Amino acid sequence: MITTITLNPSVDRRYVVQDFQVGNLFRTHQFEATAGGKGLNVARVIKQFGEDVLTTGFIGGKNGEFILEQLTEQGIKNDFIQITGETRNCIAILSKDVVQTEILESGPKVTSEQIELFLQKYERILQDSSVLVASGSLPEGVPESMYYELIIRAKKKGKPFILDTSGSALREGLNASPFLIKPNKSELELLMNRPIESEEEIIKAAKEISQNGVEFVVVSLGSDGAIIIHKDLGYKVKIPKIEVKNPVGSGDSMVAGLAIGLYKNYGIEDMLKLGVACGTANAMEIGTGQIRKANVESMFKNVKVEKIKVLNSLK
Amino acid sequence: MITTITLNPSVDRRYVVQDFQVGNLFRTHQFEATAGGKGLNVARVIKQFGEDVLTTGFIGGKNGEFILEQLTEQGIKNDFIQITGETRNCIAILSKDVVQTEILESGPKVTSEQIELFLQKYERILQDSSVLVASGSLPEGVPESMYYELIIRAKKKGKPFILDTSGSALREGLNASPFLIKPNKSELELLMNRPIESEEEIIKAAKEISQNGVEFVVVSLGSDGAIIIHKDLGYKVKIPKIEVKNPVGSGDSMVAGLAIGLYKNYGIEDMLKLGVACGTANAMEIGTGQIRKANVESMFKNVKVEKIKVLNSLK
Repeated sequence: MITTITLNPSVDRRYVVQDFQVGNLFRTHQFEATAGGKGLNVARVIKQFGEDVLTTGFIGGKNGEFILEQLTEQGIKNDFIQITGETRNCIAILSKDVVQTEILESGPKVTSEQIELFLQKYERILQDSSVLVASGSLPEGVPESMYYELIIRAKKKGKPFILDTSGSALREGLNASPFLIKPNKSELELLMNRPIESEEEIIKAAKEISQNGVEFVVVSLGSDGAIIIHKDLGYKVKIPKIEVKNPVGSGDSMVAGLAIGLYKNYGIEDMLKLGVACGTANAMEIGTGQIRKANVESMFKNVKVEKIKVLNSLK
Repeated sequence: MITTITLNPSVDRRYVVQDFQVGNLFRTHQFEATAGGKGLNVARVIKQFGEDVLTTGFIGGKNGEFILEQLTEQGIKNDFIQITGETRNCIAILSKDVVQTEILESGPKVTSEQIELFLQKYERILQDSSVLVASGSLPEGVPESMYYELIIRAKKKGKPFILDTSGSALREGLNASPFLIKPNKSELELLMNRPIESEEEIIKAAKEISQNGVEFVVVSLGSDGAIIIHKDLGYKVKIPKIEVKNPVGSGDSMVAGLAIGLYKNYGIEDMLKLGVACGTANAMEIGTGQIRKANVESMFKNVKVEKIKVLNSLK
């Protein structure tokens, strides 16, 4: 089984307000609420692809109940730690010309007792999981070393761990050398603390990270595909032109594809192709973290992988 | 007991985002969710004043559970009809210079079976209620004659009915001659379908409505107090200068004061004074539909009522 970890899930509330502007009152019939947070997007894509997936993390309040009910309806297993605070809302307002305005609540505070309970649950979850995926930000109260801790424990049991986060949560997590990370270009810039423009600079930065023991550094580049460093090897994955309906969640969908490829023991090139195919299939749908398996399969055939030259940046 | 009817309640979600603008992403630690809808504001003020109050209407989903739990915590009795849809959210974003941007969901659809169940419940509630207050809009599926129906049934049992709504729901309700209505100036203009500027025009319009059998026509005028027509008598209520913290909910608080005055058999002038005192006390608080009883009592002493001359507009 693949397990996705979402420590700070959310209810994503999406409103369509054509003429949205500050200072007015708008009534809308177009709104929806979905179980959100990057790790839940990953889980939804894995499930839509047809694989078994377990979700875990911290959850609370009415929003927590809503999320668990929605996951259960979608056949996604869930085993969260119940907290006293209310799981956050993320508000997205879509207005004309696909302008998106977002308000993200900070989320509830997690106590050290709840963290301890999660770690106990995590040990049990590790037994049954073949691949672990952790995505997104850390809620208040959770130390920035949390992902480090989770990666170390997974490694002790020989389970590969995919970490998809940013900022200091990513920086600290990297100290435990996760199996795979998937920064986009701006996350890579933030991590390296320098501007990264050209393909050469991307490769150089990814190589630097990889030399600290990260098996796969997958840099997602939107419609330009991805650049991947694995030990001394480099790959470039290119995607065919598609009609983009909604690119939000494509990064999460790519992570889902990589996790499935890893879980199913795909060869390196096929794993990378599946990741990029899932990300692309998501962009073809209106929904965030939505794919059609038929689209993934057709993209998988059309995605091209080529090896690229990687100079050892530390030599 | 006073009963407030809220057919389309909401969870009011309030965000403080100083530099809010369209097209960006904002993270905020300042947010709160409260049981909302005008009738629930009225109930909260009645309870804060120390009187017993029952709330009723249609409620559903996780938001419905949240509202019922919050009402119960606040000691406010509740007896709603459970519906299958989700009770709506009303999003308010407060940005600099007290700019308010609002997004109101349309709310769930109510079925004819649920309306029938509500009417059965209403008959039982009428037995135990001395004063009825109905506030706000009608949810989808509820006919515009709904308030008409509720007023007629209350009248059969000799129970006074306060109607605080607008547009066609108010227009239809007026056909049943409720005991009291409380339009503000713009609601009065919408109702009369003509611009209303001067005090004379307000009095004339209120008198026209009153002649159709409405005992009290209370026109709320914000910091200018209120003008009231009761049969052949006219009153003007003036309020002292106060420091306004948040005027939102002052109309609902005024309705609460009027309902309490009516319930406690106050004389006309004292009832009007209590209404205006509650409205003013609400403007002195940050919270919407919040009062301090001490402020109401001090305002009650400072509010001035004077009789005004009313010409019979139909003569």
